[in-house]
Amino acid sequence: MTTEPFVHTVRPRYAEVDQQGVVFNAHWLTFFDEACTRFFEWLGDDPSKAFFADYDLMIVKVVVEWEGPAGFDERVEIEVSPTRLGNRSLDLTYRSTVGDRSVCTGVITYVSVTPGTHTSVAIPGGLRDRLAVVAPA
Amino acid sequence: MTTEPFVHTVRPRYAEVDQQGVVFNAHWLTFFDEACTRFFEWLGDDPSKAFFADYDLMIVKVVVEWEGPAGFDERVEIEVSPTRLGNRSLDLTYRSTVGDRSVCTGVITYVSVTPGTHTSVAIPGGLRDRLAVVAPA
Amino acid sequence: MTTEPFVHTVRPRYAEVDQQGVVFNAHWLTFFDEACTRFFEWLGDDPSKAFFADYDLMIVKVVVEWEGPAGFDERVEIEVSPTRLGNRSLDLTYRSTVGDRSVCTGVITYVSVTPGTHTSVAIPGGLRDRLAVVAPA
Amino acid sequence: MTTEPFVHTVRPRYAEVDQQGVVFNAHWLTFFDEACTRFFEWLGDDPSKAFFADYDLMIVKVVVEWEGPAGFDERVEIEVSPTRLGNRSLDLTYRSTVGDRSVCTGVITYVSVTPGTHTSVAIPGGLRDRLAVVAPA
Repeated sequence: MTTEPFVHTVRPRYAEVDQQGVVFNAHWLTFFDEACTRFFEWLGDDPSKAFFADYDLMIVKVVVEWEGPAGFDERVEIEVSPTRLGNRSLDLTYRSTVGDRSVCTGVITYVSVTPGTHTSVAIPGGLRDRLAVVAPA
Repeated sequence: MTTEPFVHTVRPRYAEVDQQGVVFNAHWLTFFDEACTRFFEWLGDDPSKAFFADYDLMIVKVVVEWEGPAGFDERVEIEVSPTRLGNRSLDLTYRSTVGDRSVCTGVITYVSVTPGTHTSVAIPGGLRDRLAVVAPA
Repeated sequence: MTTEPFVHTVRPRYAEVDQQGVVFNAHWLTFFDEACTRFFEWLGDDPSKAFFADYDLMIVKVVVEWEGPAGFDERVEIEVSPTRLGNRSLDLTYRSTVGDRSVCTGVITYVSVTPGTHTSVAIPGGLRDRLAVVAPA
Repeated sequence: MTTEPFVHTVRPRYAEVDQQGVVFNAHWLTFFDEACTRFFEWLGDDPSKAFFADYDLMIVKVVVEWEGPAGFDERVEIEVSPTRLGNRSLDLTYRSTVGDRSVCTGVITYVSVTPGTHTSVAIPGGLRDRLAVVAPA
């Protein structure tokens, strides 16, 4: 069985573009966070509930590389894939394109924590199974 | 001769702290960018002029790792060091502490571009010399 | 003839919600700006082109009033209406609701400027006509 | 007795300036919020403690007017004054200048709430007294 990867589209806001005419670097992490929210919804959860009751994730590492710029109101398509599934942590990879141009790729390492705390805990089994199904082969 | 490393202090704004009670991840890149501005001023330039006339930098890669959180209005001290000096690119390393706790370290790779363009160009000699003086041994 | 008012939906990002559990106040102006972009697209223009070539707007005044909060990932519906059309300036009113709750209303006064400058100029006739058509009676 | 008004200085970040070359409008509310934090510190409290234990404020209305722009890294001086003191609410006025130019004035109406809630409550007497001392005659 193959699953189409999840893709979230962002239109950069005027406020997010700097004097170089490109999305300011920090906003890519916010775009990836928004894509993450929609990705967990696509996996079957209501993010506004699940993230505070059933599980929570804290970021411990990000690696972001740019291949080109994105400008105001372009269609930035962000593909989200779980590229590593550990016991208490996982990596999500975000590949961003504008049309057929690669613009920005992020790999973000999350640690599973008990909601409301900063204490790491095993990724809940049900969530883990759903992530495994959509992980690239 | 030894040079004291440059340190810039940031007080996280209420707007920058999320429901987990910690600075939202993306804002660390904005903090590093603010520290970068002050670092180039410390090197002897007026950032609002030099960055548009004499040289400009575009970010091509960031690696950020968190060891702990920072909260609203804490004193975040960010030490900035040039840890790699290439011909057309350089790395700045940002080490952040709150008191004696390490909280967040970023390594950012910049490419020198002709101001007003996205075209890479050798780092101007004068700037390069000043960076070399403050680079860690 | 009646025209249905234009409505833009925003889902507040995790990054936009503060420790009080509500969207931080400043982000409402960014939401209204995003709604403004989509409103001008709905009027028939490509915002990424029209705003820099055919006309441009600078904000001179905002009045924002809150009646209730919006939280992470709620469906915030923002209705946009031109509520005043002057010669060189106009007001857009943004009424935000979550379900049947009023949450935030903004009235923003824009001055028409020659693109690339801060010099005020009459609102171009074609744009003015299209705004007049959708203005509330 | 006269008291010098409190002034907080902000240097706009590169990330806060848009393609028009000026601070994007929403960031002014964040600047005013930062100035508010420092103003309450100047009144004698530790903002990171007092705001969550002794009192808390929610914004119900803002009026912001611009007279001119501020650009990257300019010295924006923000004078903060309590211009209205009600029983459960107050207005702070923020007057921003760059050199001798007026750039932006905000009047923000806050409601006093029980910390951790959205329930309005009388402004604590001690805080009220300290605000009254620095209110303009």
